Amino acid sequence: MQATAKANTNIALIKYWGKRDDTLFLPMNSSLSITLDGFYTITTVEFCKELAKDAFFLNNRPASEREFNKVSQFLNHIRNLAGIHLPAVVTSENKVPTAAGFASSASGFAALAAAAAKAANLELSKKELSILARQGSGSACRSIYGGYVEWQKGIESDGSDSFANQLLPEEDWNISILSVLVASEEKKVSSREGMKRTVDTSPFYDGWLHTVQKDFETAKEAIKSKDFEKLGKVVEANSLKMHATMLGAEPPILYWQSGTMEIMHHIQKLRLSGILAYFTIDAGANVKVLCLPSDEQSVYESLLTLPAVQSVITCHPGSGVTYLS
Amino acid sequence: MQATAKANTNIALIKYWGKRDDTLFLPMNSSLSITLDGFYTITTVEFCKELAKDAFFLNNRPASEREFNKVSQFLNHIRNLAGIHLPAVVTSENKVPTAAGFASSASGFAALAAAAAKAANLELSKKELSILARQGSGSACRSIYGGYVEWQKGIESDGSDSFANQLLPEEDWNISILSVLVASEEKKVSSREGMKRTVDTSPFYDGWLHTVQKDFETAKEAIKSKDFEKLGKVVEANSLKMHATMLGAEPPILYWQSGTMEIMHHIQKLRLSGILAYFTIDAGANVKVLCLPSDEQSVYESLLTLPAVQSVITCHPGSGVTYLS
Repeated sequence: MQATAKANTNIALIKYWGKRDDTLFLPMNSSLSITLDGFYTITTVEFCKELAKDAFFLNNRPASEREFNKVSQFLNHIRNLAGIHLPAVVTSENKVPTAAGFASSASGFAALAAAAAKAANLELSKKELSILARQGSGSACRSIYGGYVEWQKGIESDGSDSFANQLLPEEDWNISILSVLVASEEKKVSSREGMKRTVDTSPFYDGWLHTVQKDFETAKEAIKSKDFEKLGKVVEANSLKMHATMLGAEPPILYWQSGTMEIMHHIQKLRLSGILAYFTIDAGANVKVLCLPSDEQSVYESLLTLPAVQSVITCHPGSGVTYLS
Repeated sequence: MQATAKANTNIALIKYWGKRDDTLFLPMNSSLSITLDGFYTITTVEFCKELAKDAFFLNNRPASEREFNKVSQFLNHIRNLAGIHLPAVVTSENKVPTAAGFASSASGFAALAAAAAKAANLELSKKELSILARQGSGSACRSIYGGYVEWQKGIESDGSDSFANQLLPEEDWNISILSVLVASEEKKVSSREGMKRTVDTSPFYDGWLHTVQKDFETAKEAIKSKDFEKLGKVVEANSLKMHATMLGAEPPILYWQSGTMEIMHHIQKLRLSGILAYFTIDAGANVKVLCLPSDEQSVYESLLTLPAVQSVITCHPGSGVTYLS
């Protein structure tokens, strides 16, 4: 009863921002992402009766109590589905550097869901795996698939229609995603708290909900027709809108730093010079830049000339969950 | 038929953002400002039959055609009201340095309205003068009064109930307003265009309208009770909301520069250290900081340590329109 799975992280092009159900991780809006190569989690799960209770090792160390509790609770879903009552030992290796500005929860729960389900002898479809991963961390449901992925928000209260789908496999359209780390302090408001405060207090959240579905459809069309300019425009605008909703929260949430702003203006200037580059920013100060592979080197070099840029790491569309054993 | 008037500029605490009538300069929302000492326009108007047509000299030079046309059209309002058909010569001295990040249209049209009305022998109340000035530039209606001033948006289509009122005279509550000039390029989108694009395209404009009246009432209460912390909080939040509405426009409008962001975070850090300082930002990259006079020196000095700050000019509440002859 042992299995090992690998999952890549993903970057949202149309943002998941706001939950309609905090327990089931059901989103207020549909979202869209690229699963990335290079940043991943490998997780091994073994259910065994010799254990007194669950154990969780992260990067060769016992995990914190908070991390342990999240994983153990997640394993309860699997045990319920499989009808087993065994403790498990979970070993995770996280190759998602915090320094790159990526959250590791997407790859983490996708790998955990896949490994634990297989170890428990559950035969799950990708759709079922996506629904399962979602209950660990919303964006994890997208990392089950490679390439360009949508997450339909669904309308059912049990979450049975809220799962991800592949729009385009990674090998069908190569674009470059540059992850730009800017000088910044640790963020003061977690994504989870930022999302909740925005939904609860921002007068702009309605405006977000009224337009994000259109952004989602536009991005889908752009991906299906491989129209990079169309995709970049809607991705950048959607990210700005997400941050705008937070500026209206009480108290306001401001994730951007001066370096964030410097990169945003730099990318807009690159476009004026004829280079199709677009930015997107998650709930933090770091910036992801999208460009065509033919422009990757020049965009990379130009970013490194900015004083606020600490590092730039380049990614491309990567695969979905794979089983290593 | 000659008169000279002086008007100070003003800084909006609750922003005027969006017009319901482009010709009459009728606003979508009520706003609130402080008329400032130190930045002003002095304007002399003389109607005389010897002239073939209007003439307008700005800072000892003939004004541009665009400026001339605005002033000449504005004089037509006065001529209509007074029933005169004489050309006028207008001489303006602008002590509103663009470098301080203030618009000169507020003091400019307030001084012009006052001087021209007096030169035309119109006996106007302050309310009538405010309505007149508003038709040159919306925010000019507030510069008729000194100190803390409200501009009730009104509901009539002819603008007869859309004018300013003094809430508190300048001598009743002294606070410090530091105008911080940040390194930035010329702004690409004018305030007028930014306002229009936001009203026409931003999904967040409804949220602005739904909450700005409450901000306005809160700021009025704070001014009446001289509660600086209450005032600062709502002023900063209102400014962030105005900028949020622009991030949702199509295409998005981003007036902030990296230096803007640096100052915003600096001010929020000052508060954590116990200094009550708050920022407000108009449609541009520069920042105005509000603080108590007892903190003025330390806030000033701390701002000058920031790399992005080019200059800091300190103002206080100033008087309304005065007649020099």
